Amino acid sequence: MNVGILTIGNELISGKTPDTNSSFIAREINRQGWEVAMMMSVGDDTREIGKALAHVLAAADAVIVTGGLGPTVDDITTEAVAAAFGLGLTMDEQALGHIRERFATRHRRWTENNAKQAQFPDGAEPIENTVGTAWGFLLKRNGKIVAVMPGVPAEARQMLTGGLIPRLRREFPAAARHVAGRLMKLSGITESAVDDTLADVDFAGMCVGIGFYPRFPEIEIALTARDADGERAEERIRAAEAEVKGRLGRYIFAVGGDTLEAVVAALLTEKRLTLAVAESCTGGLITDRLTDVPGSSAFLDRAVVTYSNASKTELLNVPQEVIAKFGAVSRETASLMAEGVRRLGHTDLGLAVTGIAGPAGGTDLKPVGTVFIALADGRETRCRDHFLRWDRRRVKVSASQQALLLLKDYLCGAGHD
Amino acid sequence: MNVGILTIGNELISGKTPDTNSSFIAREINRQGWEVAMMMSVGDDTREIGKALAHVLAAADAVIVTGGLGPTVDDITTEAVAAAFGLGLTMDEQALGHIRERFATRHRRWTENNAKQAQFPDGAEPIENTVGTAWGFLLKRNGKIVAVMPGVPAEARQMLTGGLIPRLRREFPAAARHVAGRLMKLSGITESAVDDTLADVDFAGMCVGIGFYPRFPEIEIALTARDADGERAEERIRAAEAEVKGRLGRYIFAVGGDTLEAVVAALLTEKRLTLAVAESCTGGLITDRLTDVPGSSAFLDRAVVTYSNASKTELLNVPQEVIAKFGAVSRETASLMAEGVRRLGHTDLGLAVTGIAGPAGGTDLKPVGTVFIALADGRETRCRDHFLRWDRRRVKVSASQQALLLLKDYLCGAGHD
Repeated sequence: MNVGILTIGNELISGKTPDTNSSFIAREINRQGWEVAMMMSVGDDTREIGKALAHVLAAADAVIVTGGLGPTVDDITTEAVAAAFGLGLTMDEQALGHIRERFATRHRRWTENNAKQAQFPDGAEPIENTVGTAWGFLLKRNGKIVAVMPGVPAEARQMLTGGLIPRLRREFPAAARHVAGRLMKLSGITESAVDDTLADVDFAGMCVGIGFYPRFPEIEIALTARDADGERAEERIRAAEAEVKGRLGRYIFAVGGDTLEAVVAALLTEKRLTLAVAESCTGGLITDRLTDVPGSSAFLDRAVVTYSNASKTELLNVPQEVIAKFGAVSRETASLMAEGVRRLGHTDLGLAVTGIAGPAGGTDLKPVGTVFIALADGRETRCRDHFLRWDRRRVKVSASQQALLLLKDYLCGAGHD
Repeated sequence: MNVGILTIGNELISGKTPDTNSSFIAREINRQGWEVAMMMSVGDDTREIGKALAHVLAAADAVIVTGGLGPTVDDITTEAVAAAFGLGLTMDEQALGHIRERFATRHRRWTENNAKQAQFPDGAEPIENTVGTAWGFLLKRNGKIVAVMPGVPAEARQMLTGGLIPRLRREFPAAARHVAGRLMKLSGITESAVDDTLADVDFAGMCVGIGFYPRFPEIEIALTARDADGERAEERIRAAEAEVKGRLGRYIFAVGGDTLEAVVAALLTEKRLTLAVAESCTGGLITDRLTDVPGSSAFLDRAVVTYSNASKTELLNVPQEVIAKFGAVSRETASLMAEGVRRLGHTDLGLAVTGIAGPAGGTDLKPVGTVFIALADGRETRCRDHFLRWDRRRVKVSASQQALLLLKDYLCGAGHD
């Protein structure tokens, strides 16, 4: 099956908002063994939408449309699709009830324009939105399929994988091939180094597709194999996975979709270890990431963001003399912060970060991006230093990543370094 | 002038690489006062490229193409463009010399396939690449313009602003219009309520374009006016802005690109007030956001994430009896946390959040999403409660937003509520 993708919105063609839906949809379509013929974006304009639909459907069996399903006047996608096929609009009572209920349970004021989101072209099949109010729909015309989803990425993603892909598979059963895939997440290596390390592996000869996706501060490697025989596809993936792991194993922190914080949280929970965190330049980000994991209260007791020197001394008992002699950003201060927060929290482990996030505060000896990360377990304290050459936000993100990696290495029993 | 954008590459339609060029080019085109008619992406396929060119040029005065100009076999854009217009290819000696020289000065080995990058369709005008080897070109056919640039974002950006835009301005001198714009950020109101409130304003009659962009947990309103006279465009924007402010002023926290945390940080700095933060369910996110602002150490002394009940008592002096009687998630505990962290930090203000982020931990009386936010200034403590029906991450984000809004309202002198 050949699929076209059409994203709609003035915010896209004005350059205000980058289109992230197309790429995500394309990946999912390819994962199903189908192909993407083209991707298009047009503004919220009935005539342009009609012309784009005609162009895409001339080349593809189906078109997946996102955007313009909201309640506001500039949301005209449903009307435009109906007009393109000479159809009227019908209110769907089930969808309407669902949207009204969503408003009621959230104590949000109902306004009549929201009913618009329960209107669909005649004969269209509504697709439920489980995370928002803009329902999608699927329309069959002249042997082709038009599927429309909201533009909000989280809603589009949920609807695509949860509702639309299964329906498309029913419509195009012959297109369904078994697709085996593996997602590996790496940290601590550049994309070009990954590419270089894997350059001599003949993935094409193994009939396995490989893609690299940098997602700061991580890199994802996606392996895909398609075959009529599911077990054969899986075998190929296993062989390719072994090649990648043989070369890059030390950088892989997750196989599958888990986040680094989820991996660390699972290790802490499994080992029944408790943690306290002291953050300076990361400003709470490490703790924010750890508490994104449901059930994190099982291992996380408390954390402190000791931004001022006084707070490092008062809360963590880092002696003023140590700060004066070695600096707030130093191996000595980081180590004492880790030990101090471990005592403060009565926990098994204490993790601490101190550094210079910039843009100001750097010196010749300790430029912006200098970061020290320490982990104390009551017997010993290990400390790593990093030089992270990024802007302020990315220094924070990158330092939080390194802190979680230090914790993961410790929990996996990796040696002192 | 109406411009179409066509990006070419199998990596785009497979979903492997997100297309960042289109959005960047669209922004630059809009900045010139021109409009983008549509954006398209197709794979490295001569026939698809030809069809896409025909479709775009049927609707636009010019098409800007990126991708497929490299030296390898799958780089076929130049041949495909030439074929689409029935043209042959000519080697440009100046470009060839330039590319050879770039290889020599970088001590890279010359291979003959690189000469391909100096070939252009007959009659095309080469555009120098100052940061790479793939030159672009500009071709005039039937009163329309086809401009082709490399796909590497850094090279495309440099060529667009350095070489192509100035050339397009020479071709379309009359097309240059002034564009005035205003971006307003709102919080605490739904997109449909914004739409409803502005429904009776005739923005079209004012010759002002309006767009709503939900960016959880905020909504952006973008106003745009185009005119040959820059002052007239700005006047229209001012009139439209006044209409929006008159109706939605209390929800607007920034005019321009500022984040909520930057607005709060500027207010704290201006008023020379210091802050300490105590977070429970937000897990450090409020402090993370505040420390994203450069110079936040001027007002932020310290923060604590008091995840366990014991930590609320030990660090913030919330009596065990209060937690036992009213619960860790209560107005009483939130208020005492705010007062406690203010004392702990010796700061002017203490901000505290306690709530249930879920997915577990909810009860009938206090379901998941129940959040209490308190602010203490030493004279009085104000507290707001919220019921945020989202998933775990969005409860955290939404609660951090409400906490920053409470702080902003206080700093702006808004009354007690």
